[in-house]
Amino acid sequence: MIGGGRGAFIGAVHRIAAAMDGKAVLVAGAFSGDPARSRASGADLFLEASRVYGSYREMAEAESAMPADRRLDFVVIVTPNHQHYGPARLFLESGFNVVCDKPVTFDLAQARRLREVVRKSGKVFALTHNYTGNAMVKQARALVAGGKLGAIRKVVVEYPQGWLAGALERTGQKQASWRTDPRKSGAAGCMGDIGTHAENLAHYITGLRIEELCADLTTFVKGRRLDDDGNVLIRYKGGAKGVLHASQICVGDENNLNIRVYGTLSSLEWHQEHPNELVVKFPDAPRQVWRRGNGYVGNAAKKFTRVPAGHPEGYLEGFANIYREVFRGVAAEVEGRRIPRNLDFPTIDDGVEGMAFIDAVVKSSRLGARWVKPAAR
Amino acid sequence: MIGGGRGAFIGAVHRIAAAMDGKAVLVAGAFSGDPARSRASGADLFLEASRVYGSYREMAEAESAMPADRRLDFVVIVTPNHQHYGPARLFLESGFNVVCDKPVTFDLAQARRLREVVRKSGKVFALTHNYTGNAMVKQARALVAGGKLGAIRKVVVEYPQGWLAGALERTGQKQASWRTDPRKSGAAGCMGDIGTHAENLAHYITGLRIEELCADLTTFVKGRRLDDDGNVLIRYKGGAKGVLHASQICVGDENNLNIRVYGTLSSLEWHQEHPNELVVKFPDAPRQVWRRGNGYVGNAAKKFTRVPAGHPEGYLEGFANIYREVFRGVAAEVEGRRIPRNLDFPTIDDGVEGMAFIDAVVKSSRLGARWVKPAAR
Amino acid sequence: MIGGGRGAFIGAVHRIAAAMDGKAVLVAGAFSGDPARSRASGADLFLEASRVYGSYREMAEAESAMPADRRLDFVVIVTPNHQHYGPARLFLESGFNVVCDKPVTFDLAQARRLREVVRKSGKVFALTHNYTGNAMVKQARALVAGGKLGAIRKVVVEYPQGWLAGALERTGQKQASWRTDPRKSGAAGCMGDIGTHAENLAHYITGLRIEELCADLTTFVKGRRLDDDGNVLIRYKGGAKGVLHASQICVGDENNLNIRVYGTLSSLEWHQEHPNELVVKFPDAPRQVWRRGNGYVGNAAKKFTRVPAGHPEGYLEGFANIYREVFRGVAAEVEGRRIPRNLDFPTIDDGVEGMAFIDAVVKSSRLGARWVKPAAR
Amino acid sequence: MIGGGRGAFIGAVHRIAAAMDGKAVLVAGAFSGDPARSRASGADLFLEASRVYGSYREMAEAESAMPADRRLDFVVIVTPNHQHYGPARLFLESGFNVVCDKPVTFDLAQARRLREVVRKSGKVFALTHNYTGNAMVKQARALVAGGKLGAIRKVVVEYPQGWLAGALERTGQKQASWRTDPRKSGAAGCMGDIGTHAENLAHYITGLRIEELCADLTTFVKGRRLDDDGNVLIRYKGGAKGVLHASQICVGDENNLNIRVYGTLSSLEWHQEHPNELVVKFPDAPRQVWRRGNGYVGNAAKKFTRVPAGHPEGYLEGFANIYREVFRGVAAEVEGRRIPRNLDFPTIDDGVEGMAFIDAVVKSSRLGARWVKPAAR
Repeated sequence: MIGGGRGAFIGAVHRIAAAMDGKAVLVAGAFSGDPARSRASGADLFLEASRVYGSYREMAEAESAMPADRRLDFVVIVTPNHQHYGPARLFLESGFNVVCDKPVTFDLAQARRLREVVRKSGKVFALTHNYTGNAMVKQARALVAGGKLGAIRKVVVEYPQGWLAGALERTGQKQASWRTDPRKSGAAGCMGDIGTHAENLAHYITGLRIEELCADLTTFVKGRRLDDDGNVLIRYKGGAKGVLHASQICVGDENNLNIRVYGTLSSLEWHQEHPNELVVKFPDAPRQVWRRGNGYVGNAAKKFTRVPAGHPEGYLEGFANIYREVFRGVAAEVEGRRIPRNLDFPTIDDGVEGMAFIDAVVKSSRLGARWVKPAAR
Repeated sequence: MIGGGRGAFIGAVHRIAAAMDGKAVLVAGAFSGDPARSRASGADLFLEASRVYGSYREMAEAESAMPADRRLDFVVIVTPNHQHYGPARLFLESGFNVVCDKPVTFDLAQARRLREVVRKSGKVFALTHNYTGNAMVKQARALVAGGKLGAIRKVVVEYPQGWLAGALERTGQKQASWRTDPRKSGAAGCMGDIGTHAENLAHYITGLRIEELCADLTTFVKGRRLDDDGNVLIRYKGGAKGVLHASQICVGDENNLNIRVYGTLSSLEWHQEHPNELVVKFPDAPRQVWRRGNGYVGNAAKKFTRVPAGHPEGYLEGFANIYREVFRGVAAEVEGRRIPRNLDFPTIDDGVEGMAFIDAVVKSSRLGARWVKPAAR
Repeated sequence: MIGGGRGAFIGAVHRIAAAMDGKAVLVAGAFSGDPARSRASGADLFLEASRVYGSYREMAEAESAMPADRRLDFVVIVTPNHQHYGPARLFLESGFNVVCDKPVTFDLAQARRLREVVRKSGKVFALTHNYTGNAMVKQARALVAGGKLGAIRKVVVEYPQGWLAGALERTGQKQASWRTDPRKSGAAGCMGDIGTHAENLAHYITGLRIEELCADLTTFVKGRRLDDDGNVLIRYKGGAKGVLHASQICVGDENNLNIRVYGTLSSLEWHQEHPNELVVKFPDAPRQVWRRGNGYVGNAAKKFTRVPAGHPEGYLEGFANIYREVFRGVAAEVEGRRIPRNLDFPTIDDGVEGMAFIDAVVKSSRLGARWVKPAAR
Repeated sequence: MIGGGRGAFIGAVHRIAAAMDGKAVLVAGAFSGDPARSRASGADLFLEASRVYGSYREMAEAESAMPADRRLDFVVIVTPNHQHYGPARLFLESGFNVVCDKPVTFDLAQARRLREVVRKSGKVFALTHNYTGNAMVKQARALVAGGKLGAIRKVVVEYPQGWLAGALERTGQKQASWRTDPRKSGAAGCMGDIGTHAENLAHYITGLRIEELCADLTTFVKGRRLDDDGNVLIRYKGGAKGVLHASQICVGDENNLNIRVYGTLSSLEWHQEHPNELVVKFPDAPRQVWRRGNGYVGNAAKKFTRVPAGHPEGYLEGFANIYREVFRGVAAEVEGRRIPRNLDFPTIDDGVEGMAFIDAVVKSSRLGARWVKPAAR
């Protein structure tokens, strides 16, 4: 693991999620750029001191030199955005599979370069847009793919949070600090951090791609250097329309990612905060509530279910489902088999798509919220 | 009553709402442009045949000639949009108070002219943007006005319906037919019919006025001549941002008008389909659910409550609350007293605002969804 | 109207509900045992002074003497329980149709006597167990009757309120005072006031009749003379089991009447505070939410719907639906036609059933919560 | 681990929950009474073959002989009820800490004997009434303990499931088979399996103990030998009243454990299927929704939270919280420190309480649902 030391949030999530099915064990890490902090973090996690490193470069070098039976099977990168590209590239080129947190890189150019690296490497590269790991999101996608909704006409995807409604970054809070710092986060704040999740979720469920968009980004908190709120109109290829809005100043909202997809035949609705349910609506039939874990739920979702219906799964299980698919790929790669083609996790292509989205919303907003076509991916 | 004969929807709603408190009785009407249909409708309603008219002109003439103790106290206009201006003007100029359905007129120019007529008349003129009659909407407004939310940063207001997802107008269904006919409905379809309700609700609760907007309207159903879906980005005067979307092609959604208002101190959320509740959210305190009819609910809402907490009120009560305030004005006018200044119902100014909104969204959309400032009102 | 003067609650509800469809007008009343209060209440309601009476006896005499075209078509009794039997009997015997609030009488013996009076009179007698007027309750009943649930196994019906959690009656509050007074309310407090609604709702939807019950009643508020809470186990004829609990000390609950019915094939769930929805659950199919006003809703519910889907109906509409059916009966009776047999409102038989229920729960509780069979009805 | 081999449900849950915080690793097991099945299950779990045993006795013997640094720190028993006592006793007496699934034993006598064994052993013994591990259940308990509800008057606790509405046991389904078999499950079916969870939850939150109860158990599915439904009236010591009902024939209900606690000052409500929320209700203040992960949530709940507010936790996290506390005890025991007194997990005393509850409901029901005092514990 690269990053994720003391004080971090997402590192612990990755550790729980990766280990949930008993198929992975954490054995090495460079948890911080500060070697002492890295060591302390490694000790917290019961690691052998010899495999806790002061930098990712040191780690790549040492781990590459390990015998095959002790070598890492994959590396997880959970550093701030500006520190994704470096380790991702190095580990891929050193022959390791890589799992990387989102957004994939600091900017679009980096993402394209990383795509080349991934392609050349032949390794597994996964991006943790974790919400697509939720079982009922997979059910939603299956319903769309199966034609149950007919042609998609409209998508409304929202991601309101409230935790940055005040100047939290000025208190030294670590998560807030780097996310609001353009040198670490990239060109966008809120839209890069969570807007890309919303974009990815809509794309995953519907398969739609953005033709052009019009984005009005705002920085509400004085002195903040990146957007903390954004409203986006979308025109998808093929004629569907979209509304995407994300915010970190929506006081009292927690992590309210949600999506509604409207088709010619039916519609669906999913809320991350109640992830075990999927609502399906019809022109003239009772509204349906599909609930995870039941027999009627399709195979796409069933495979990603750990406990029975009514025993709620949550955020960690969705995350763990990404890893479950990653491990199918990693196992094949490590064992020298062909990597399966039907792996169901976000890839470097989703990463490039996300960076093109960030690039476009920032460009649109700087033009005063004019329509912009995302750059060729 | 003008309009509202057999086969109409909103006429019956007005009749129930106006009579709910036992303070008004329907005594006369021109229920249809077809005199036979008008008579049949009048008979359905147990009216004296002599006061059922074949046209609103006939009615205005006859009723004006009545002795004071038999004269109408007010007239209700529930015809399609293109038939608002004519009767509204005539009855106001004939000395009657007028209640008119929304949107106020066929276009903005008419609305401005009608405003002049109202001002000259000295009569009560009310516009039934009925949703602002809901008790918990009034509570929401009171919370904002009282500073409980702090400065407003963001407004998200939605009005998805699904009933026009197919070409219902081609089946001859009356409501669908005129609403999709630009000669009757005006320049906008969905945005005129329900987008204006959303705009009015946001304005009523927050007091914010639109500085400029960017609207992407769509006609999804082939052959339809007006928009059936619209997504709008809003910049309010003072810096708040808004997202407004309305649709009539959202399969399975019924009448899901809802609003979220985010301030610096707290946020609120109201859903028309569950109108007895108002959710208030804080940065670090339990979420509050305010429920109509309780002692802690403020006076603004308490006055507009008929049954105790837990005994749900609905659509009709909200509508009746508009009439309750109208009657305070009408009673004063009829009795020759000064019309109170604190009447709480939508006025001709709201009507002009709504028509300026329609005008701006249509203009913006025709320009390809560019930013447009609503015309001076 | 008998009762329902200034300070009353349910009188105003009856007035709105009865008049909602424009088919009834209030013309006379004995609104209070205090003649001055009765007159003042009549004036509030714009009645002719000559038809506002100081007692129900005076009113029965005077109205009986009216010519047929001015006579009352029906009388509404909205006094406390101990004052139901007297006026009900007198008006029935004087040739008037009667609508009476629940529970039907002071005790079971009175209820049986009143049943005889009703039978002999040939008049319409309706009891306002208003919740069975809700459209989706009628839909629930239709689903059960149509076999959609299979054989009923279990019923859970609840009616928690919180308004009597403190000794409100000691403040002089009128509603609390008579409801907690055994001379006015009868043998039961909470169970008579709202427990009977719960019993009636379960019976209406399922058709099940109680074989025996075991009731544990409690008076939590010191000094109160009647139960303010009751928990009841039920064995229905035919083998179904039931749980019924009602309370007026459930702090923060408002009027949360709700029911769940479990059958061999499917189950249903209805909540009075969200009356427009009916949830239907299956062994292995998505949960269904049936919503009032849609095309798929059956005729039983459709007839009792005033506004379209998504425009919420509430407490008053349910109440008005009772009147809608009453008027079908009253119209026939007044016009000398045969009274239809398919009238859908609670009758004197429901009233006797309710009094037998009260009688049994009180008896059971006094025995220390032993199993008791309700008296023969 | 004892039990939990291929085809089991709860074994996997324990494995995920115990390992979630990276503080435990599964190293040995007797996963089935069938040695081949046990070996296969061990292989699935990547265990060393030498530590996969054909019986729990074999395992106890072999593991007892291990050097201290390789020995098990604790044993988890996840067999059917009739196989709890044997291994629990043996492992405790062999010097191991024990985690045991619920209900604790086959009958009350066994539970009392096991309590003696636990006391003598000085080891940690935990019972996985997992629902009390939920963070918001802990918050509920803290609110009651802190006096926020005042004196408790009424408890309503429900546990409806629907999975045994048909004769699933006749299909050979493993979970259904042993749960409906009196030789494996004990004297009660539904009430033993899930009724005890409900009883335990109510006790955990309120601290109330049952004075006497009246239980009406039913077997709805023909040929089934144990109850599949039960309704219980409760009188708590001190005067509070309770309603507890549990069922496995409630078609379409999944795992709907929920509780409402009503006090003199306020009330609370928690639903297992939406475990991140806790509703608190007041006589005259807005209803509050407390949501896991926020700053205002008290320490009792905060300690048991892994991801931020709005990132839903579920069933597994609640379970893992039991283990988190168990590990505090186990670590002390293994390291030779005094076992802390403030460990927050269900103990053998809760187990005896649960068996006394089962004993009493069965006795009451056999007497025709008479009031019974649970045996002295």
